[in-house]
Amino acid sequence: MIHHLRRFMPVFDWGRSYDRRAFSNDMIAAMIVTIMLIPQSLAYALLAGLPPEAGIYASIAPIILYAIFGSSRALAVGPVAVVSLLTASALGQVAEQGTAGYAVAALTLAFLSGGFLLLMGVFRLGFLANFLSHPVIAGFITASGFLIAASQLKHILGVSAHGHTLPELLISIFSHLGDIHWITVALGASATGFLIWVRKSLNPTLRKLGVPPLFSDMLTKAGPVAAVVATTVAVWAFDLAARGVKIVGEVPQSLPPLTLPGFAPDLLNALLVPAILISVIGFVESVSVAQTLAAKKRQRIDPDQELIGLGAANLGAAFTGGYPVTGGFSRSVVNFDAGAQTPAAGAFAALGLAFAAVALTPLVYFLSKATLAATIIVAVLSLVDLSILKKTWGYSRADFVAVATTMLLTLGLGVEIGVASGIAISVLLHLFKTSRPHVAEVGLVPGTQHFRNIYRHKVETDPTVVSLRVDESLYFVNARFLEDLVQKRVTNGCEIHHVILMFSAVNEVDYSALESLETINVRLKDMGVGLHLSEVKGPVMDRLQRSHFIEDLNGEVFLSQFDAWRKLANSPVPTAAQ
Amino acid sequence: MIHHLRRFMPVFDWGRSYDRRAFSNDMIAAMIVTIMLIPQSLAYALLAGLPPEAGIYASIAPIILYAIFGSSRALAVGPVAVVSLLTASALGQVAEQGTAGYAVAALTLAFLSGGFLLLMGVFRLGFLANFLSHPVIAGFITASGFLIAASQLKHILGVSAHGHTLPELLISIFSHLGDIHWITVALGASATGFLIWVRKSLNPTLRKLGVPPLFSDMLTKAGPVAAVVATTVAVWAFDLAARGVKIVGEVPQSLPPLTLPGFAPDLLNALLVPAILISVIGFVESVSVAQTLAAKKRQRIDPDQELIGLGAANLGAAFTGGYPVTGGFSRSVVNFDAGAQTPAAGAFAALGLAFAAVALTPLVYFLSKATLAATIIVAVLSLVDLSILKKTWGYSRADFVAVATTMLLTLGLGVEIGVASGIAISVLLHLFKTSRPHVAEVGLVPGTQHFRNIYRHKVETDPTVVSLRVDESLYFVNARFLEDLVQKRVTNGCEIHHVILMFSAVNEVDYSALESLETINVRLKDMGVGLHLSEVKGPVMDRLQRSHFIEDLNGEVFLSQFDAWRKLANSPVPTAAQ
Repeated sequence: MIHHLRRFMPVFDWGRSYDRRAFSNDMIAAMIVTIMLIPQSLAYALLAGLPPEAGIYASIAPIILYAIFGSSRALAVGPVAVVSLLTASALGQVAEQGTAGYAVAALTLAFLSGGFLLLMGVFRLGFLANFLSHPVIAGFITASGFLIAASQLKHILGVSAHGHTLPELLISIFSHLGDIHWITVALGASATGFLIWVRKSLNPTLRKLGVPPLFSDMLTKAGPVAAVVATTVAVWAFDLAARGVKIVGEVPQSLPPLTLPGFAPDLLNALLVPAILISVIGFVESVSVAQTLAAKKRQRIDPDQELIGLGAANLGAAFTGGYPVTGGFSRSVVNFDAGAQTPAAGAFAALGLAFAAVALTPLVYFLSKATLAATIIVAVLSLVDLSILKKTWGYSRADFVAVATTMLLTLGLGVEIGVASGIAISVLLHLFKTSRPHVAEVGLVPGTQHFRNIYRHKVETDPTVVSLRVDESLYFVNARFLEDLVQKRVTNGCEIHHVILMFSAVNEVDYSALESLETINVRLKDMGVGLHLSEVKGPVMDRLQRSHFIEDLNGEVFLSQFDAWRKLANSPVPTAAQ
Repeated sequence: MIHHLRRFMPVFDWGRSYDRRAFSNDMIAAMIVTIMLIPQSLAYALLAGLPPEAGIYASIAPIILYAIFGSSRALAVGPVAVVSLLTASALGQVAEQGTAGYAVAALTLAFLSGGFLLLMGVFRLGFLANFLSHPVIAGFITASGFLIAASQLKHILGVSAHGHTLPELLISIFSHLGDIHWITVALGASATGFLIWVRKSLNPTLRKLGVPPLFSDMLTKAGPVAAVVATTVAVWAFDLAARGVKIVGEVPQSLPPLTLPGFAPDLLNALLVPAILISVIGFVESVSVAQTLAAKKRQRIDPDQELIGLGAANLGAAFTGGYPVTGGFSRSVVNFDAGAQTPAAGAFAALGLAFAAVALTPLVYFLSKATLAATIIVAVLSLVDLSILKKTWGYSRADFVAVATTMLLTLGLGVEIGVASGIAISVLLHLFKTSRPHVAEVGLVPGTQHFRNIYRHKVETDPTVVSLRVDESLYFVNARFLEDLVQKRVTNGCEIHHVILMFSAVNEVDYSALESLETINVRLKDMGVGLHLSEVKGPVMDRLQRSHFIEDLNGEVFLSQFDAWRKLANSPVPTAAQ
């Protein structure tokens, strides 16, 4: 029974050996993570267009559920930047920000996303996430970083603007430039400047001053909290809210409420595709973080179990006033670095956040939205990585095209079109690359049994025998290419009596390729030319034998190319063909 | 100049050597084809929902333009069954059958299709048609055959019915069963029976009676004309039109008119995707016919030139009262068998049809629609090939799934969704198949320098060295799989000091795979394990050297697996890692 439960609930795995040392390590990590998560949760809720408490609620139940079902020992689950942006984009299509419908739609989105992840996990479909190529993800994340920063600019400037693409956002901000609220700008700009300075220079400066590494690390991590405290005090002390600075205001003092997602068919229908997109992107992000951290301890994570863990976390968010969540990079790294040993660290952080939700929310009443925007902008700077453009340009033009297109479309047409096109383009480019496989005409290296490209090596050939080495699996995309190639080669030389296809590098022959081979066979037969195969791999041969191809072959199948050559070179015209 | 023209107009190629013998061969073929095309053209126009003369017009200018620009010497271009069905489906979404708007939309569809084909040809994108796999095409054509037969059933029964999917058509016919017009049924059923008998039994019967093969072939081909003549005479003699049998009626006596497609943005927008689909399917059908016929004479056709030829033909149809056309199977085979030597045969057939359009149209006034439906039904029977289900089931389940899905979706949801899903499914199945590449752990065959799978052969191994032979190119779909696999293998054995990836079968490493290799390298380094590569192909190595991977590699690149083994087996723990 326990064994069965352990299959789906890793908590029974690590829970049994949980001891005092693990407990104290986990507690310390939890405290550090909690302090970091409070402003982050509020900020990402703002980014998603939801009330600030939604961000805190989205960090409580999901963390606990992930601790029970997830397989990573360091992953910290909760609201993250890119998923918050995707949430805002999806919800913007079905409801107005600030309405009750918007918050319900957020629950529905989390519900659909959780259900989808759970299904994927139960059916062990985690590998499907691999259809998203690294360049597409990199391009998408970078473009999302720009979009997020642009979407927060309005809070720093104190203007109202909206849009889901970079041009929309910039035009909207530009047209409101007259409304700029300079006190907000002063507050937002100084918070941004301070946070950038903390991020870039504080740690080295403290080190130079002789502060011990552990302490200087902690001070650096407390930067956002310091910014929050300082600006909140400033707003309160100078009564800036009355002068027009937008503040967070009243946040309910309560534990996460029990909530019910909306199940109206129209709503489900409109949110299904965005939910799938959010799930897939969240999963890919989360798994790569979890894998990186697990590898450092020579542990493994199980991607299908991760799907179940993230699915449970999102269902949790759906029923406790949250919105879609996933494993976040920065919080997980902090958790890991702070010494978290088991998922219990996450559960303790959840307790910390629950305490904050009940006791500390009055303290953020005077927190300015500009400060939250500043923390978001500085956080997403780490997402922006334009070097991927240069790296892929140097490595492979096809990958560069995939990155650049994904970026441009994400910025210009929005996150959903951007990532969908990115996937489509990377698949098309792959098909394109394999559509013209390398096929070498080979000849015998004198004195050996080896065959090499006739254009690169001095080899023996026979004008009546053409040997073609196919350097790719044959499937529908390149099947007809081989037809054309053989046809071209044979119609170019009038004396050809035999064609040998050397299959040493062919790992698969699908049905389309089988039909192409049959066509080649029939055409060559009509021309009085024999078709032979050599060095066919076992599994490919097994499959070919299930069809009539081998029986109908106007020639033979040879174990080695050398056997084929010995038999056919300088031989008389094939009898079958005359 | 002429050389330049020949590049785009093959007419300058074969035209220079045109002689009297070719002329007489072409004339004979043209006469036979003309007789066959008259009823066929009328029937396919009916299938497309257009007035009968549209079918004849679509056979005149397109044939002549194809003769100038096309590269096949035997292909006969004109209205064909599947394209007519696709046309009806596309036009049904923008206009009502029988209206002027419907005919104009048909011209626009031909125009868009022609423009798209021409562009594809000029940019030499013919290979894109290969993304349609053979099983998908086979499934689609078979399902289309059923749809076409079902759509013609109403003419045989004399009821009115409509729909673009099999359930719609059958339900619609079923609900009109009370309206069956029995005289029409008698006419239609006897025509159908007669045509099936002609197709299946006439030729063998005549042969048995001692009729010479050439003559019995011609009689068989004249079957549809005989059915047309007999039923038309019957309708006229017994005044069946007055008794409710639907007839073709007045067909204008004229050469193809000059017409202008509609260019309203809404119309262009609505027809663009159908036009692309029609172009691609028409092109694939046409090229496979042309290739088959060319191969019989050891000739080649140029797929990109075919695009230009078909593009010109469709533009011709758009401006002369036609609708989308392509190279037809049956008419091309008849043309070829009748001895057509050059595309001039097509031009002569066009002249014959022009004569028919001017002089013979009054003769079809009493031609019943039931007869035309019978000729369509019998013609499409040859499209239906359910054996593809059995063949693919035996050969490969993935291909079977592609065929079955394409068929079911085409029948159940219509031609456009059917073929689009077919393409998507075959691509997904391919990605799925390559997403878990074969990776063999290899060891040294004693006394040789060869390495073989440790689970299949008796080989030497070293518990501290893991050699993995990767049997597939590495790209985004399977990159992460390799990460997981290496991670799993290394975390399973605690003593491992070296991992060697044997790249003999890796033809490509894309940027995603590069990043995965980098990740593997970093993770192994963190664990104190060395990562080495062996037998990397030249182009793959060139590419890897453009990145930092080789520099950062926590190990070496060996020319051969044996070199790697000799150096690493039984060696001390790698220094770099400690």
